[in-house]
Amino acid sequence: MGGDLGLRASIPASLKALKDYSDLHLTLVGDQSLIKAELSGADCDWNRLTVLHSDAVVDMDEKPSHALRHKRDSSMGVALQLLGNGQVDAVVSAGNTGALMALACLHLGRLPGLRRPAICAAIPAVDGFTLALDLGANVECSASELHQFATMGSALYKVLTGCDKPRVGLLNIGEEIIKGTQVVRDAAELLDRDQAINYIGFVEGGDYFSAAVDVVVSDGFAGNVALKASEGTANYISGRMQDFLQRHWGLRLLKGIMAPAIRRFRGEIDPRRFNGAAFLGLNGVVVKAHGSSEAVSYFSALQQAIRAAKSGLPKLIEESL
Amino acid sequence: MGGDLGLRASIPASLKALKDYSDLHLTLVGDQSLIKAELSGADCDWNRLTVLHSDAVVDMDEKPSHALRHKRDSSMGVALQLLGNGQVDAVVSAGNTGALMALACLHLGRLPGLRRPAICAAIPAVDGFTLALDLGANVECSASELHQFATMGSALYKVLTGCDKPRVGLLNIGEEIIKGTQVVRDAAELLDRDQAINYIGFVEGGDYFSAAVDVVVSDGFAGNVALKASEGTANYISGRMQDFLQRHWGLRLLKGIMAPAIRRFRGEIDPRRFNGAAFLGLNGVVVKAHGSSEAVSYFSALQQAIRAAKSGLPKLIEESL
Repeated sequence: MGGDLGLRASIPASLKALKDYSDLHLTLVGDQSLIKAELSGADCDWNRLTVLHSDAVVDMDEKPSHALRHKRDSSMGVALQLLGNGQVDAVVSAGNTGALMALACLHLGRLPGLRRPAICAAIPAVDGFTLALDLGANVECSASELHQFATMGSALYKVLTGCDKPRVGLLNIGEEIIKGTQVVRDAAELLDRDQAINYIGFVEGGDYFSAAVDVVVSDGFAGNVALKASEGTANYISGRMQDFLQRHWGLRLLKGIMAPAIRRFRGEIDPRRFNGAAFLGLNGVVVKAHGSSEAVSYFSALQQAIRAAKSGLPKLIEESL
Repeated sequence: MGGDLGLRASIPASLKALKDYSDLHLTLVGDQSLIKAELSGADCDWNRLTVLHSDAVVDMDEKPSHALRHKRDSSMGVALQLLGNGQVDAVVSAGNTGALMALACLHLGRLPGLRRPAICAAIPAVDGFTLALDLGANVECSASELHQFATMGSALYKVLTGCDKPRVGLLNIGEEIIKGTQVVRDAAELLDRDQAINYIGFVEGGDYFSAAVDVVVSDGFAGNVALKASEGTANYISGRMQDFLQRHWGLRLLKGIMAPAIRRFRGEIDPRRFNGAAFLGLNGVVVKAHGSSEAVSYFSALQQAIRAAKSGLPKLIEESL
C-alpha cells in the first residue's frame, strides 16, 4: 500500500468504504505489522477485511521494466495477481503509475482487440466532471488507438453517470477542421463514422472544464500536459489566494470564521477532486489513486473501483470495442 | 485593427503608449473613419500618430491560406508590409493568429538558418513569469526545431528581464530521462550539449507556474494545450469563486468594500495577464495581442513590442542561432 501518505490515507479510506458498502470485502496487501498497527482499535466488520503480507515495495521512481523483473512479489504485484486469479474484483493503488500499468498488463492482460490500455481520470467541470484519456500511458498514438480510447471513455462515463450518450470530443489546438496533426484529423474521421460514439468534434485544452463535453480523447502526452498544467494553475491560484487573504484586512478579520469555507472552496477547485485514474482496456478493474492522496480522495478512488467492478466495466468495454 | 473588442481596446492602449513612451511613433492601420471617430477629443501628441486607411479585414475564422491569397491589402497585411519595408519597427495585432503568421512570413521572411518561427508568450509564475513556446505555430516539431525554440525563448527572456542565463526546460510528461517521445529525448541531448543554453532538463505541465524554470520549450500542440488548459482552469476557478462569494454570508457582507480587491486578484490569476505573444524567428518584431484583449492587456502587448524592437530582438536571435 504505497503513495506519499501511505497507510495514513489508505487505512481510513478503507474503513470508511467498509462502512459505506455493506457488501464490500477488502483485502489490504502490504506490510502486515504496519497495517495492523494502523488498524488497531478500529471499529469495523473484521469479517470483511483481510490483510495479506508483502514487504517488497515498488519505489515511486522505479522504472516499470525493473519492477516487472524484480518486484512481482511487491504489494502491488501480489494485489494484481489476486485480481488476475479472480480472488478479488478490483485493485486500487497509490503507487508508481508506470509499474502499476506494467504489472497490470502482465497479470491481467489486455482485452481482446485492444491495442493499448489508457489511463482515464475525471476533471471537475462546470456541471460535474469530464473524463479525460489518455493521461500518460501512451506518449504517441495512432488514429485507431484514439478511436478505441473514445469507446472506452464512453463506457466508463456511462457506468459512472448513467448517461446514455456521452459527448466525446477530440483534443486539438483549434476547432477548425484543418488544424492539428494528421493523426488527430484521421481519428476525427474514424469517430465521425462510428455510430456508437456521440462524437461532437474537436475541443481545446480549455474545454476539459466546460459543460459541453463529457469525454476528452487525446494521446498520453497532450493529456498529461493538460492535466498537469491544470493542477499547476490551481496550485498557483491557491497560493495567490492565500496571499490575498493575508493582505486584505476585511478577510483577515473574518479568517477564523471563514477557514472551513475556504478549505471547502480549495477542495472544490482541486483538479484531483475526483481522485482515481482508471486503467482502461485491461481484463480487470484497476484504479490508480493519486500519489499524494489524502484519505478523502483515496476513498473516492475506492468508490470508483467499486462502481466499475459492480457494473462489469471490462466486459462492457470488450463488447463495445 | 482587429480582435473581439476592436478599437475600444486598441485605441485607449495606443493613447496610453504614446503618453508613456515619448519617443514612440504609432501608425494605426484600419478603417480610417472608425479610428478617427474613436480618437476624437483624445489628448495626445498628434505628431507621433499616423492613421493609415485599409478597409479589408481578415476574419477571425479565415484560413491563413485564404488570407495569404486574398487579404494582402487588409489592415494586417498593410501593417506587415510597412514593417517589411522598414517604415515601422514592430507590428501589434489582435487579429487571426494563423493569418498573422502567414502574412508575417510572406512580408518579413524567416531569419537565416531558422527552420520555423514560433509563438511565444509569458505565463504568470510564482516569482514573475515563465516564457512558453511554441504555442501553436507548429503542431509537430523535430528535435532541432525544439532546440531553436530554446535559443529564441532564451533571447526574448534576456531582453524582457535582463537575466543573463535564463533556465530552459523541455516539456515532457515525467522528469525521468526514459519518458516521453523520441523527439523530446533527442532534443534533450541537443540542449544538453549547447553551452549557450542554460538547460535544466525535463519539466512538466505544472512547472509553467513554478519559480524553477524561465523558458519552457515544447511543440505547438502540447504548448497550446497547456496554455488553454491553464486558461480554462483559471476561468473555472474564477466562476467557482463567484459562487463562493455569493454563498458565504461574511463575504456577502464585505462584498462592496472588497470588490476592487477581488477584481485585482482575478487579474493576478489570469493566465493572460502578460498579454502579447511574440512571433519569434522572423525578420521583424510581431506581437499578437489576445483576441479578447481589453485596453490594459492590449497595452501590455504594445509594451512587449516596444521592448523587443528597441533591443533589436530579431538581430539578437539571428546571432545566437
